[in-house]
Amino acid sequence: MTADVVVAGGGLIGLSLAWRAARRGLSVTVVDDAPGSGASRAAAGMLAPVSEAGYGEEALLRLCLASLDRYPAFLDELAADTGVRVPLRSAGTLVVGFDDDDMRVLADLQTFHVELGLEVHRLLGREARRREPSLSPRVRGGLHVAGDLSVDPRELHPALRAAAEGAGVRIVGSRVAGLLTDGGAARGLALDGGAELRAGTVVLALGPHSGALPGVPAVPVRPVKGQILRMRAAAGLLEGTVRALVRGRSVYLVPQGDDGLVVGATVEERGFDGTVTAGGVHDLLHDALDVVPGVSELELAETLARWRPGTPDNAPLLGPTSVPGLVLATGHHRNGVLLTPVTADAVADLLVTGELPEVAAPFTVDRFGAP
Amino acid sequence: MTADVVVAGGGLIGLSLAWRAARRGLSVTVVDDAPGSGASRAAAGMLAPVSEAGYGEEALLRLCLASLDRYPAFLDELAADTGVRVPLRSAGTLVVGFDDDDMRVLADLQTFHVELGLEVHRLLGREARRREPSLSPRVRGGLHVAGDLSVDPRELHPALRAAAEGAGVRIVGSRVAGLLTDGGAARGLALDGGAELRAGTVVLALGPHSGALPGVPAVPVRPVKGQILRMRAAAGLLEGTVRALVRGRSVYLVPQGDDGLVVGATVEERGFDGTVTAGGVHDLLHDALDVVPGVSELELAETLARWRPGTPDNAPLLGPTSVPGLVLATGHHRNGVLLTPVTADAVADLLVTGELPEVAAPFTVDRFGAP
Repeated sequence: MTADVVVAGGGLIGLSLAWRAARRGLSVTVVDDAPGSGASRAAAGMLAPVSEAGYGEEALLRLCLASLDRYPAFLDELAADTGVRVPLRSAGTLVVGFDDDDMRVLADLQTFHVELGLEVHRLLGREARRREPSLSPRVRGGLHVAGDLSVDPRELHPALRAAAEGAGVRIVGSRVAGLLTDGGAARGLALDGGAELRAGTVVLALGPHSGALPGVPAVPVRPVKGQILRMRAAAGLLEGTVRALVRGRSVYLVPQGDDGLVVGATVEERGFDGTVTAGGVHDLLHDALDVVPGVSELELAETLARWRPGTPDNAPLLGPTSVPGLVLATGHHRNGVLLTPVTADAVADLLVTGELPEVAAPFTVDRFGAP
Repeated sequence: MTADVVVAGGGLIGLSLAWRAARRGLSVTVVDDAPGSGASRAAAGMLAPVSEAGYGEEALLRLCLASLDRYPAFLDELAADTGVRVPLRSAGTLVVGFDDDDMRVLADLQTFHVELGLEVHRLLGREARRREPSLSPRVRGGLHVAGDLSVDPRELHPALRAAAEGAGVRIVGSRVAGLLTDGGAARGLALDGGAELRAGTVVLALGPHSGALPGVPAVPVRPVKGQILRMRAAAGLLEGTVRALVRGRSVYLVPQGDDGLVVGATVEERGFDGTVTAGGVHDLLHDALDVVPGVSELELAETLARWRPGTPDNAPLLGPTSVPGLVLATGHHRNGVLLTPVTADAVADLLVTGELPEVAAPFTVDRFGAP
C-alpha cells in the first residue's frame, strides 16, 4: 500500500497537516500507536505569542502571530468539515506581578507589545482585580493582552482527527519503528511488527520523539519535561488566562470549558522521565495559590507530565532535510498548539508546491549547519 | 436465610470481628457493596497510641495500648489462617520539631510516655538525622517512640477478608439499606433491591456512614474528612514513621512496602464531601517537604479523600445499644487500624458471651446519655 505522503505522528501537528494536505488532493496516511496521548494531552492551549517571558526571535514571533491570526478561520473550517465547533476563548491574557521587579518586567513587555502594534492595557492592582476578582490582593498590577486566545487541546485533537479522516486520511494505529530509505531518499516508514508503508514523502511529526527515529539523520529535538495540573469546579473563578511570575517561577492558569482550569507548567531537562513528582506538583500549587487564593477550594482532578519537543533555539523545525523526501514538522517546544494552523498550512504548501511559504522558511533544519 | 450475626460494613472493623466471631462458632454474614473502599483505603496504618498530638482520655489510651499489644499475635493468627503474612513495620515513630514551642511539646510528650512506662528516647537534631538521614537540617530535635508499629491497611484488608471467608463468613456485595426490627428489637438488615437478611444480632460497622442508617436510633458518628497522598520511589528514604508539627499543622510520613510512602492527613469538617482539593494537597506536600526535602523527587502516585468516623469524644462506640440485638462497632475516628484487633476481640466476646471485656466497657454509646 502506498500513499503520496505518510506522516509519522498523529498529534495536533501530524493530524492537522494531514488534513490540510488531503484537502488539497494528496493521499495521506498517519501512523501513531496512541494519537493524542503526547504533548497536547498536557498542553494548556494558550494562544499567546508574546506573553511568554522570553520574547524570542523576530522570525519566530512572526510565525506565532501568523498562526494566531489564522486560528479563528482554522476552527471555522474545522467546524465546516466536521460539524464540531471547538470553542475559542477570547478573554485575552492578564499578566500580573507582585513587586517592583515584576512591574519592570511588565513595563518592558508592554513596550514590546506596543512596538508590535498589539493591543495591550496596563492595569493597576485594583483594575486587574476588577477584571479578575479572584486575583490575590497582593497583586500590584497587570498587563492585559486583549488579542490572546486559548483553546482546549483535548477538544481540538479529536476534531482534527475527524477532519483528517473525513478528508480521506488513513490513520494506522502502529508504532513507527524507523524510516525506510532507498538510495539515500526517504521511501516510507517501517512499523512495529515488520509492516512497511511506502510513500513519496515522509513527514516526521513525532514531537519529542522526533530526535531518535532509526534511519533518520540526527534531528536536534530533545524532550523538555512539563508537569501540569487540571482542576475542576472552577466555574466563574477566572474569565481568561492569568500568568504570573512568582519568585522567578512562571505560572499560568488557563480556564477550560465550563468548570476546568489548567495550571502549568514545570520546565525540566530530565530526558523522557515522565514522573509526576511531589516537588513539581507542590510548586505549581504553591504558585497558583499565591496568584489566585481561591484555587485552594478546587478539585485537583488530574496531574500529568509530558515532554515538549525542544530545539537549540526553541523554534520549530519545518520543511525539507538533507534526505530527499523527508520533511520535518516538529520541535514546536512550548508553542505547539499555537503553531498548529501555520505549520499545517506551511507543510501542506510544501507537499503540494515544493516550496515552503516565506513565513516558515527560516525554520528549516539547515539553520543549524549541514548534518 | 438467617445467620447468628449479620455485620453491616466490610471494612477492617467489620471483617475482623466477623472473622473472630466465626472462629468462635457463630454463623456470620457481612454486607458491603464495596468492601475495603472506605476509610482504610486512605489510612496510613500508624499503630501509635500516643504519638498523636492530643493525648486523649485514659480509657481510650488503655484501649489503644491493648490493641497495639495484641497486633503481632493478631497478624500471626491471620497468617496461620490464610497463609498471608501482613508485614508489621517496627522502626517506631520519630516525632520531630523545628522551634522552641515544638521542643516544649516534645518534652511534654516524653514525660507522658515515661509515665505510661513506654520506651522513648529524646534525640538532638543530629541524632534524629542519624536515625533518619533524610530529615531536614532545620529539625531541632526529636522523640523516638520505639514501640510504635505500622501496617499497610491495603494489605491488611484483603488478608482479613480471606480469613473471614476461610472461617465461613459469607460476604454479600450489596448496599445496606436499613435495619430490620421486630417489636423494637433488631432482626436483620434490609438490602438495596428489597432483599432481607435475618439474624439474631446485627453489628453496625459502617464507619462514617453509621450515623444515618434507616431504622437505627441516632448514633453520634459524623464524617471527618481526611486527604492523603501516596508516593512511590521512596525506597530508602525513611526507616520508620516520621511525625512533625509544621506551623501548627500536624503531618506524618509513613513508609509502606518496598518503595511507598503515605503522607497525611488533613482534618476537615465538611460532611461527606470527598473532593481532593488543591489546597489540601498543597498543604500536605508543603509540610512533608519541610520535614523531608527529598520527598520532592518522589512520584506522587495517588491522592485520595475519605472520612474518619468521628464521635463527640473521639473514642469509638462499642457494644450494645438501647435496641436489643443491635451492637455498635464504629466511631474509631483516627484509630481504626490501631483498634482493629481489640475491637474484633471485644465484639466477638460480646457476641459469644453477652459481655464486653473490661477494656472495652467504657465505650458503649450510653456514655452520651439515654437516646
